[in-house]
Order: sequence, then C-alpha cells, then structure tokens
Amino acid sequence: MAVTLAIDCMGGDHGPTVTVPAAFDFLDHDPDCAVILVGRQEVLQPLLGNAAARFGARLRVHHASETVAMDEPLATALRVKKDSSMRVAANLVKSGEAEAAISSGNTAALMAISRFVLKTLPGIDRPAIASTLPTIKGHTYVLDLGANVDCQPEHLLQFAIMGAMLFTALEHKERPSIGLLNIGEEAIKGNEVVKQASELLKNSGLNFYGNVEGDDIYKGTTDVVVCDGFVGNVALKTSEGLAQMISTFLHEEFGRNLWTKLAAVAALPVLNAFKARVDHRRYNGASLLVLTGIVVKSHGSADVLAFFCALERAAEAARNKLPSRIAAGMAQASAAL
Amino acid sequence: MAVTLAIDCMGGDHGPTVTVPAAFDFLDHDPDCAVILVGRQEVLQPLLGNAAARFGARLRVHHASETVAMDEPLATALRVKKDSSMRVAANLVKSGEAEAAISSGNTAALMAISRFVLKTLPGIDRPAIASTLPTIKGHTYVLDLGANVDCQPEHLLQFAIMGAMLFTALEHKERPSIGLLNIGEEAIKGNEVVKQASELLKNSGLNFYGNVEGDDIYKGTTDVVVCDGFVGNVALKTSEGLAQMISTFLHEEFGRNLWTKLAAVAALPVLNAFKARVDHRRYNGASLLVLTGIVVKSHGSADVLAFFCALERAAEAARNKLPSRIAAGMAQASAAL
Repeated sequence: MAVTLAIDCMGGDHGPTVTVPAAFDFLDHDPDCAVILVGRQEVLQPLLGNAAARFGARLRVHHASETVAMDEPLATALRVKKDSSMRVAANLVKSGEAEAAISSGNTAALMAISRFVLKTLPGIDRPAIASTLPTIKGHTYVLDLGANVDCQPEHLLQFAIMGAMLFTALEHKERPSIGLLNIGEEAIKGNEVVKQASELLKNSGLNFYGNVEGDDIYKGTTDVVVCDGFVGNVALKTSEGLAQMISTFLHEEFGRNLWTKLAAVAALPVLNAFKARVDHRRYNGASLLVLTGIVVKSHGSADVLAFFCALERAAEAARNKLPSRIAAGMAQASAAL
Repeated sequence: MAVTLAIDCMGGDHGPTVTVPAAFDFLDHDPDCAVILVGRQEVLQPLLGNAAARFGARLRVHHASETVAMDEPLATALRVKKDSSMRVAANLVKSGEAEAAISSGNTAALMAISRFVLKTLPGIDRPAIASTLPTIKGHTYVLDLGANVDCQPEHLLQFAIMGAMLFTALEHKERPSIGLLNIGEEAIKGNEVVKQASELLKNSGLNFYGNVEGDDIYKGTTDVVVCDGFVGNVALKTSEGLAQMISTFLHEEFGRNLWTKLAAVAALPVLNAFKARVDHRRYNGASLLVLTGIVVKSHGSADVLAFFCALERAAEAARNKLPSRIAAGMAQASAAL
C-alpha cells in the first residue's frame, strides 16, 4: 500500500543532517511510498540536491517556521510554537495528507502535541509509548516506556489491551501472550498497583501469561510485556547503559596490544555479525499509542540508519492500518475496561 | 582482622554441593578467618573429607534440623521452622559467635528472619538490599534491589543515607555521590514519590548529585544509586537477561561454522579477559541493610565461585565493622530524617 510519511526534519540531536538522508534512503527502499519533509524551507531546500528530480512527486517540503528544542518547556512547545515542525507534521496526519508522523524531538512535547492534535481513542485515558526489544527468540513489545509515570491498575490493563492490538496488527498473530512486569513470578509478590492489575488482567479475556520478571523481556517469555512508564523507562535506559558498557569492554580488550588486535581482525566477521544482531538502531522507533493517527518517536540521538528504521516502522504501522485496528480491538475489549 | 562467618549451607538451588566447597575456598584464601557450616549434620559431615584436619578449629559444623524451601510461605519460614539453617545462622550472629551470616535461600524469608532476629537500627523503618554493579569506571552501589516495593519519599532518603554509609565503610571514601534513579535528568520529570525524595535529598547534607537515568548505573555517574525495590529489582533482572542474551548471541556467532570457530580460538584469550570483567559471579552477594548485624544474600543459583565472592563480601563488611559504622552514620544523619 502506498503510504505518505510526514517527517519532522528539525528534531533530534542532529536535525536535518540525519532526517533528510534517512528520508532519501526510505524513498529508495520503499518505491511506493512518499514523504513530506517538514521544517524550515531555507534549511531543507539546500539539502535536497538532485532529490527533487530523483523522487518527483514522492518528495515534497512543507515549511514550518518553528522548532521545538530538546529542552523546551511543555507549555511553550504546546501553546506558543504553533508552527513547529513537530506540530505541523501531526497536523498533516490529522488532515489526511500523511498516514504517519515521525519525530526525534522532545518526547514529552511530541506526546502532548500528538494528543492535542490527534486525540486519543475512546476508552483510553492515557496514550502509552510502545517499542520492540530484541530477545533470544525474536522480539518482544514493551509498554509503557515513559509516557505515564504514576499509573493505576486500570492503566496497566489499558496498556495490555493496546499492546495486544499492536502486536496483532504488526505481527499478524491473534491472541498474543501478555506478561505483567513484576519482581517475582509468584502472585503474592509485587507492589499494590501491580497486584491489582494482575487481577484485572486475569478477568480481561486477554491471553494473560501472568507475572514476568526483568530477565523475561530478553528471554522472550511473552509477546508483550506491560509495565508503568517509570519502570519501563528505567528498564530501557538500564539496558542501553549495560549494552554500551559491554561494547566498551569488548573494544578495550581487543585493542589492548598487537596480539589482541590481530585476534580482532580474525574475529571481525563474527563480531560484525554479532553487532548487527544487537544493534539498537534496528529497534529505533517507538509508537505513541493510542491516538487516532500514527505517531512514531525516534531516539533523539538516532543516526541515519536508526532514523530510517523508525521510518520503516511508521510505514509498516500505516500499511497495517494500526489506528483503526486498535480502535476495533478496543471496542471489542471495552467490556473489560 | 579475624572474622567468623555463619554459612547457611542448605539454601540456594544447589545447597551444600556449592556452599561447602566455597567455604573451603574461602578458608584457603583468608587464613585468619573461620566458618561455621550451618545445616543438617548428617548431610554436611560426609562432605567434609579431610577438611577437619586441614582447617582445624577454623571450621565447625552447627546442626540445624530444618531448611527453608525456595518457595516456602513467609509465615512458615518465620514462625514454624524455628530451627532452620537460615535462622540458626542469624542467631549465631546475634549471639556474637559469628560476625556475619550468608545465605542463598529465599530472599523474603531471609529478610524477615534477619529482621526478626537482628532487628533494625534506630531511625530506619525498613531494611534494604544493596549490591554493587560493574561500571565503565569501576562499580556502583545500588539500593534497594527488592526488599521494599511500595516506598515513600522518606524511605528513599533512608536508603540514600544507608548507601552512603555502606560506600564509605567498604570503599573508604568520604561523602560518596548519591544519584536518585529517575526517568529524566530534569527535576520536573519523574513520579510523585521520586520528586518529593529529590527535595528531601537536596536538604539532607548528603553529597546529592541529582537525578540519574538507568544508563548512568553502568556509566558509573555516581557512587551510589537509590531507587525503590520494585524499580531496582526490575533494573537488576533486566540486566541479567540482557547479559545472558548477549552471551548467547556471541556463542552462536562464534559457533556458526569452522571459520568462526577458528576465529574463536584466535580470540579466546581476549574473550576470556572480557568474560572475567563482566562475570556477574564476581558481583554476587547483596548486603541486607540496616540490621544490627551483617547478613549477606547470595544469588540462589550461585555456583562455587559466586558463593565464594559472597563470602568475601561478608568478611569485608565484618572487617570494616559495617553495622557500627552505619549506626554512627545514621546517628549523625538523624537530623535529616
């Protein structure tokens, strides 16, 4: 299916130097798709080169005069900067000119603007941030990753329903298994909110596996792991830190002296294959759930490959008509809410 | 300083087949120390071999007729099994026959029994579980790792004080830096409990660095990281799962075919050096804080090396007179509580 993406080209640590080349890669890779580059015309136009000729009508620039800074207060981002590239991208989804918006900008601002422009689906109090993480078996969807820091049991149930719908829409598997992130497998363990959420999930009609622990995320014990945004964000950031440390140690050990450097040359193809498997860039692009349109948040420090992966993720969600599928799923599950 | 350890030999996944050889290794390694092996005499005695002759008065067996099972309900462990190896080990610390107790048994039972037998220090509502994690720079102390799942801001402040005292006692550094685990560095982020804890920490007189994120644990941004037990346990277990997945992937890639296996041989010394640096067994042994005596919790699945490391940790805490140093620190800090 032909999909048009509205790309906030100004967000993230690197802005257009990353977002524009990633958009070109995406157009090369998905010949039936189109992109709208959103941002300051005078900045974007000089970066296009011969792209206008190469991609024709599949590429256009949509001017937005303002940019939300990474440390912008929420009130300014939402109420003052009405012509920000982030907001204009969301507007393009609302108006139907694009199927999905993608941004590497300030997460809180993106969440607030998306929620204001696109609204949430009925039955959902709060949007959530969902992403995939690699596992020994494949990958797991985890939510919430930081949109909601003080959750009630009902919110965890809503995340579970959203996560299940997301998994079904993108992985084409009915009744995915849902794990509730806890600190012990026994039902008596956990804090009060999690204990109550466990009871709600048992009676939800979802394929509830039960409690899972932190290590189950990477074991791939369940298709979906549900947690509050504080816990999910800590788990994600801790993982990033550990992976970075392990990578640093590997580099240090292989760089120690001439012999270890020779060993590194011998092991290079293996190390490259290994790196490709754990490359966090391939997992870039978190979905903001549940809005009436698709918004994908890229990591702020994303490079061209990582931002390209986020664009791919957005296109896939659009091809699978994620919002309408989730809306249908929510309606079905509304008895449990 | 001569230290005597009371070892619960029956706990953990492997029981005496791990704990007894680890005790012998410890006696070999620390010639001024002694151990009391606690457990069923008829099980332990046959495992001693010539150890009685080798270690003389430095080794003795103390009979305990019962064992707390890994899935034992807390009430049974605490109220029914009064002659459990776990409880007898704690009693030996209380009576002064040993300076520290070590167990790989059920965490909740160990916490409850230790608290009942040894009591907490004045000013502390709840004991916490503290452990060290490796970082790019060295290591960081993290607490709480699972003793307290529903924390108030005051508890996080107490953990910070305990963590600072622990760090000073074991690392001999005054005024260690304290980080509060949060989901963003900005003070406005975080859940309600963490926001209020941040205010308490600012006025505590501690060397409060401010908020840290999950990746800061492994970056070694601060000496101590404070969080509630739910979040800490998820961070720890998630790390274990990720490290296991990375290790599996490395094995798979190096085992793929003849060429990759040859590369593995070439890289073996480097891979071994790398493995030693991230070996989680070296970090085994969590301190139960703050009791009037030392209790160290080993991972249930610990092997001989891991359990040996937990014994070393307990001996080090005893040599540094951890409980009295923490008590003195708490008295000093009591104005902040």
